[in-house]
Amino acid sequence: MRIAFQDLYAPELSHCYGCGSNHPDGQYLKSYWSEDQQYTIAHVIPDSIYTGGIPDHLYGGMIASLLDCHGTASAAAFLARTMHFDFSQRLNTLPRCVTAGLQINFIQPTPLEATLELRGRLIEIEGRKIKVALSLSAHDMICANAEILAVQLVKPHH
Amino acid sequence: MRIAFQDLYAPELSHCYGCGSNHPDGQYLKSYWSEDQQYTIAHVIPDSIYTGGIPDHLYGGMIASLLDCHGTASAAAFLARTMHFDFSQRLNTLPRCVTAGLQINFIQPTPLEATLELRGRLIEIEGRKIKVALSLSAHDMICANAEILAVQLVKPHH
Repeated sequence: MRIAFQDLYAPELSHCYGCGSNHPDGQYLKSYWSEDQQYTIAHVIPDSIYTGGIPDHLYGGMIASLLDCHGTASAAAFLARTMHFDFSQRLNTLPRCVTAGLQINFIQPTPLEATLELRGRLIEIEGRKIKVALSLSAHDMICANAEILAVQLVKPHH
Repeated sequence: MRIAFQDLYAPELSHCYGCGSNHPDGQYLKSYWSEDQQYTIAHVIPDSIYTGGIPDHLYGGMIASLLDCHGTASAAAFLARTMHFDFSQRLNTLPRCVTAGLQINFIQPTPLEATLELRGRLIEIEGRKIKVALSLSAHDMICANAEILAVQLVKPHH
């Protein structure tokens, strides 16, 4: 069974409302490698409560939230892969990344009650900084794309 | 009594989860002119459920949501002001804008359970396109800034 990137985060860094497995009542986004391991992928059907100003369209805030959570998880995964991280077992915890910048282009309205597909492709890694190109599509049409600049969180010294 | 920009939207365009007054269970963000009318302002204390990966910090998705809803409302207000719109009465409905682009810089962690202040300053209006510079601060420190490109929604012909 595949393990989601978010389920490989350290427990103390797993409180995110959007994707943390330790949140008591969150959204629990789960991101994985694509079958060919070339990009990252996540699927989600947002609840119809998250309507935009016009009914039947997803509100922009949820689009941004999904791109952000999938983006930081993708960045962590791409970084970990350079360290030969074993994604198949819970032997170690995945690096945790935070968002420094997120640039979103809203291309067309995102439908409600549809399966949304998020994808992430690595642009570059420079030290602790990871850039990932992201897309959000529904019914095989891209509704939004984005670029995230994520930064690996360095554990504070105790 | 001041009327929030979002309460001047047409009812059929007021369904947004983040800020629509017609949503049955939304977030109801309310944006206004600053006292000197030079910029737009909104205040909000997000629920502690919206934690980021690290406890006590707001999750990125909510930061993006607030900037997006305040950004489209600000764009609508700046556009309406060029048309000498009367913001003091519910005589007409405010133009409705949707987001075409949103670029966010996350500068420092945003605390939970603090009053957040959102501000918007007009950059430029070009036809139906409005650019607004946005900031989100807590305890007088800027946690994130952003630029939104909003586009006025044109009513479909019936």
